Amino acid sequence: MATNFITPNFLLESQSAERLYFEYAKDQPIVDYHCHLPPQQVAENRSFENLTQIWLSGDHYKWRALRAAGVNERYVTGDASDWEKFLAWARVVPLTVRNPLFHWTMLELNRPFAINDRFLNEQTAQGIWEECNAMLATADFSARGIMTQMNVELVCTTDDPADDLNFHKKIAKDVNAAVFKTRVLPTFRPDALFPRICDTPQGVVKYLEYLRRFALAADTDVNSFAALRAAFAKRHAYFHENGCRLSDCGFELFQWSPPTTGVNLEAAFAKILNAQTLEQAEIIALCSVLLTDLGRLDAEKHWTSQLHIGAMRNNSTRIFNLLGPDAGCDSMVDGAYGKQLSQYFDALDKELKLPKTIVYNLNPDANYLLASLIANFNDGSIPGKMQYGSGWWFLDQKNGMEEQLETLSNMGLLSLFVGMLTDSRSFLSYTRHEYFRRILCNLLGSEMERGLIPNDFPWIGGIVKRICHDNAKEYFAFDA
Amino acid sequence: MATNFITPNFLLESQSAERLYFEYAKDQPIVDYHCHLPPQQVAENRSFENLTQIWLSGDHYKWRALRAAGVNERYVTGDASDWEKFLAWARVVPLTVRNPLFHWTMLELNRPFAINDRFLNEQTAQGIWEECNAMLATADFSARGIMTQMNVELVCTTDDPADDLNFHKKIAKDVNAAVFKTRVLPTFRPDALFPRICDTPQGVVKYLEYLRRFALAADTDVNSFAALRAAFAKRHAYFHENGCRLSDCGFELFQWSPPTTGVNLEAAFAKILNAQTLEQAEIIALCSVLLTDLGRLDAEKHWTSQLHIGAMRNNSTRIFNLLGPDAGCDSMVDGAYGKQLSQYFDALDKELKLPKTIVYNLNPDANYLLASLIANFNDGSIPGKMQYGSGWWFLDQKNGMEEQLETLSNMGLLSLFVGMLTDSRSFLSYTRHEYFRRILCNLLGSEMERGLIPNDFPWIGGIVKRICHDNAKEYFAFDA
Amino acid sequence: MATNFITPNFLLESQSAERLYFEYAKDQPIVDYHCHLPPQQVAENRSFENLTQIWLSGDHYKWRALRAAGVNERYVTGDASDWEKFLAWARVVPLTVRNPLFHWTMLELNRPFAINDRFLNEQTAQGIWEECNAMLATADFSARGIMTQMNVELVCTTDDPADDLNFHKKIAKDVNAAVFKTRVLPTFRPDALFPRICDTPQGVVKYLEYLRRFALAADTDVNSFAALRAAFAKRHAYFHENGCRLSDCGFELFQWSPPTTGVNLEAAFAKILNAQTLEQAEIIALCSVLLTDLGRLDAEKHWTSQLHIGAMRNNSTRIFNLLGPDAGCDSMVDGAYGKQLSQYFDALDKELKLPKTIVYNLNPDANYLLASLIANFNDGSIPGKMQYGSGWWFLDQKNGMEEQLETLSNMGLLSLFVGMLTDSRSFLSYTRHEYFRRILCNLLGSEMERGLIPNDFPWIGGIVKRICHDNAKEYFAFDA
Repeated sequence: MATNFITPNFLLESQSAERLYFEYAKDQPIVDYHCHLPPQQVAENRSFENLTQIWLSGDHYKWRALRAAGVNERYVTGDASDWEKFLAWARVVPLTVRNPLFHWTMLELNRPFAINDRFLNEQTAQGIWEECNAMLATADFSARGIMTQMNVELVCTTDDPADDLNFHKKIAKDVNAAVFKTRVLPTFRPDALFPRICDTPQGVVKYLEYLRRFALAADTDVNSFAALRAAFAKRHAYFHENGCRLSDCGFELFQWSPPTTGVNLEAAFAKILNAQTLEQAEIIALCSVLLTDLGRLDAEKHWTSQLHIGAMRNNSTRIFNLLGPDAGCDSMVDGAYGKQLSQYFDALDKELKLPKTIVYNLNPDANYLLASLIANFNDGSIPGKMQYGSGWWFLDQKNGMEEQLETLSNMGLLSLFVGMLTDSRSFLSYTRHEYFRRILCNLLGSEMERGLIPNDFPWIGGIVKRICHDNAKEYFAFDA
Repeated sequence: MATNFITPNFLLESQSAERLYFEYAKDQPIVDYHCHLPPQQVAENRSFENLTQIWLSGDHYKWRALRAAGVNERYVTGDASDWEKFLAWARVVPLTVRNPLFHWTMLELNRPFAINDRFLNEQTAQGIWEECNAMLATADFSARGIMTQMNVELVCTTDDPADDLNFHKKIAKDVNAAVFKTRVLPTFRPDALFPRICDTPQGVVKYLEYLRRFALAADTDVNSFAALRAAFAKRHAYFHENGCRLSDCGFELFQWSPPTTGVNLEAAFAKILNAQTLEQAEIIALCSVLLTDLGRLDAEKHWTSQLHIGAMRNNSTRIFNLLGPDAGCDSMVDGAYGKQLSQYFDALDKELKLPKTIVYNLNPDANYLLASLIANFNDGSIPGKMQYGSGWWFLDQKNGMEEQLETLSNMGLLSLFVGMLTDSRSFLSYTRHEYFRRILCNLLGSEMERGLIPNDFPWIGGIVKRICHDNAKEYFAFDA
Repeated sequence: MATNFITPNFLLESQSAERLYFEYAKDQPIVDYHCHLPPQQVAENRSFENLTQIWLSGDHYKWRALRAAGVNERYVTGDASDWEKFLAWARVVPLTVRNPLFHWTMLELNRPFAINDRFLNEQTAQGIWEECNAMLATADFSARGIMTQMNVELVCTTDDPADDLNFHKKIAKDVNAAVFKTRVLPTFRPDALFPRICDTPQGVVKYLEYLRRFALAADTDVNSFAALRAAFAKRHAYFHENGCRLSDCGFELFQWSPPTTGVNLEAAFAKILNAQTLEQAEIIALCSVLLTDLGRLDAEKHWTSQLHIGAMRNNSTRIFNLLGPDAGCDSMVDGAYGKQLSQYFDALDKELKLPKTIVYNLNPDANYLLASLIANFNDGSIPGKMQYGSGWWFLDQKNGMEEQLETLSNMGLLSLFVGMLTDSRSFLSYTRHEYFRRILCNLLGSEMERGLIPNDFPWIGGIVKRICHDNAKEYFAFDA
């Protein structure tokens, strides 16, 4: 058995890298400003029965790998037992060498489970299963236990405007009572409110169902587009009262049209209310107004806007019919959108209503485009106002992170970067921060030794510390 | 004269890399599952008069370099003597440093010609010319001789559905009689059958000429689109009987429309039969049906579909009029096609008729897009079902191969990769496999030593061996 | 204070790299064949009052960094004093680590100012300000003084066809009289003559204003498109007489339509003369004819055509209204254009009127596309006829240069590359050549030691020398 794997110096390939990591990065608390954790599980401090429950169920990255390895769907999402599913995964792990899943698996077994003397495979599966399940039965491995172990200072979940945020309120009460230390704030994600799906009759039906829930939450009669916009602002304010300081929107290709395109917004919205489908131009016009409203609201409340661009979703109809969305059949998409994105920023900037913004792209062919484009709109008001976001989804791996750091460094100011996030649905993903920090320190340490950047530890270490923690705290201004 | 060049450790920059290469890669037989060798030359065991005949004539990579270096067309494809052409090439070689042609040249002179103490240049040209020509006159350097020397177990040529496959039959007989050891199987490449060129009158004429040949081969009267589809299936079956297990199609930008677009297929096809040109939508509709038929047929017969996407061809009208296609005036093209490709896969997947598929892209800006997109359609039926193909054409170089391995590793499972191919028209290209294997071992060896992957030789060496040989044998299932 | 920074071996990470740099690169005179220096300042041998005047004013790279760092516009382009602006910049420099500005700053302080014992920051600002300002008051630091110090043999400025070139004539006289050694030649940049902006009434007004100036310069009545084309050729000839050997055009996405698209050119141009706006198709048709004319004229006079593709300009309306163009609000754009570019080259090639051409792209997703595409049109007439240009604007940094060298090497012949340029408005940018040369030598030196290229110094050093100087001199044939 090879034992060269998770050593303390994993990924730290120079002495300077080690020093940066251990002195400036390792002990920084985690500010996980974008994730998909279910707030209910934190509020109720969920415990997990076994490794499959906490680690495999809902993890569409692993599902993809299992299917790619030729594993039958029964062992992926089907009716096999939890142990059978775990064993199927253990058999596939040795095939994942060089895929991010291989490193993630090792990191996640190492922390919090302290499994670092074995690779997971068919032979070691049973032992690891039993050891980890025993730990999962203890308080340190409940949802809150893990967050505490992993030194998580704050997380931002991802929430629908129709959500009542009751779980967040419950957690906030416990944090105020010093019963639990990790702050858990909501993020305003209004994607469902954008009538993108209203090009088909089924889409309109689904949208109207959502609208009823949203109207109820907003305690308003949404009988016009103006009423929708007002209710939108009302929910935004409600989220603000509950500690929300970020919004988030997802896009396939970013689309935006200026308000001058001639679509009658009220007439278009009335079509939806009358259960009629819309033309693409109408959909884009309505979505553009809502998105611009969001930008304005974010700017007024000093929130940060997040834009996630470039995901093509639910590509297998067969799997979608079987399992619904987020089932491992999403990928990147190609196509141009720079101009529309630039026009959107410009429209807000002209009104002095452009919020702090983080843009994430999924297709790396847009890395340099985006990092150069957003920088056109830095206005001197806030350090690092326009942020080129960390490697997202398929780009959340060593290569992708290094490319993100390279792109950001060349097109902007790395020193002001707000750093890593997990984007995860799982309580076991906090080692993504460790992974990122090691990669960051390795990159900078190597360049210190090669004379490319100053070998001045307070200077460069200070940058590391800020990227790992301080920049995010200052930028998001959670307590403002 | 520098003598640091082709050493046994060429490209192997660590001890682990050396060990992987020499213990797990070097002696694997070659399965060259995609090439453009003329089967006639294998059937007739062609001998080559001189280096120009076997090495320069027909090699549009070298033609491009000659033209770029300012060499007159007379010495490229014109009426200069073979020696003059060779000398012209020898003069250009020193300028090709860092271009793949430089490494290829050294590798190809080293094996099979054992010229490894000199670089080819104006001074060494005559000696190399004479030594190699003398070797070419011997049996070991005939078409079959070289394939035997290079340990080639199996090759798949690229063949038109109208081909009678008689040369393949002749070779198969010799292989069965143990007169020759390398299996030579056909690949079904129906590009000429897709009526893409029917947007111009000359195109229609050319297509109809082809159709007559095809109908003759299929022994059918192709008087309707239904008849064409039936004849298509008939030829597919004929290829299957003759050992074919792969199909291949080439695309500029991948285009596909669902059968619901409203084009009347029979009416559109009738226009061709009546020597009329087609609208683009008609062409795309007809091609889409044929392509989907191909997918179904491939799935039913357990073949592997290959898609080559992104080549813009015959860009210089002047050279095309002079020399025809494949004259060194092809390049990459840009543009989006991810969505249509995804819809094509989904259409087949919905019917459970998606075959094993390898996708190759020419423009590297699509690397991550494609590798992520195809993985949406792994269905657990076969390990590595959807393959991200090896570096193709302009990407068939050290950097391109490393990028392909990086992309595949990050988006999928490297362990299941079916590996390298030559894509070549020349009997001297088998060292491309050596080149690839050295690059693969160098990459993995370096990461073993840096602690990024396990330094476990049976594990990682096993992956190397499978990528170099076993995966392809199992995946293509040539004997099924 | 770290002192590992600008050492003599900066960026040279191997002994071979050092040897290549010091023996073959360092002392080559600079041929800066593309820049934006104001010829007036050379003609009048301008002196600079202080560092802000010569180094910050007009430098939109630094403006972007200042705004990104949260610095108020007053200290960027506003009414703060020169010292306040310098201090603001000095405070931001430590944040620019890993951005090209950090290396550029160090290089530019090192040469010509010999500041290499300190990094610029808030603490060192005053000392550096005083030392440099004292130097700037001396003759060695005037416009001509710096060019002489920096061993600049020749520069090509960027000039409008309406320019009288009087400053160039004045400089030429001084060079002929041996009063000044650097040749300063004009470049023909006719962008303003392309009626791209004639899609809006204000655009037409602006275009007509320009047309009057142009007609005056050409001493012609431009009352038809034919007259415009004739005047265009006349100005081209005038530039030729004044030593011009290059043209240059900038494009957002390259657009070109063949002359057969059915637009009546004279009718379209008459609309402009009648102050009417044009349709996009009319604009593209007129621009395409002028661009093709330019290609023909360049070919006839053995000039080199430069195409700069991919910049999206003036994206912030707010800043444009405040400061006009070139204010730091430009970026890359995305979108496909390969096919149109190929058709443009083909149209000229068919007539045997394709000039020597250098293509530069801003969005790196087009690197491989362009480098492969242009090579389709090498015709054997001139070594390195179709050039893949050096890293431009946002790509003019270590990573971008390495990618350019990698792309060029893989797709073409690095040996024939005409090398680096500054593209700069500043007399302090000549260290960009040093930066490039160090990066080039580092790349080649590393590969010599790793056995990837011959460790033959005359051979590889000869390539270095040619790329740094000789190739450009031969290729542009300034004295032909």
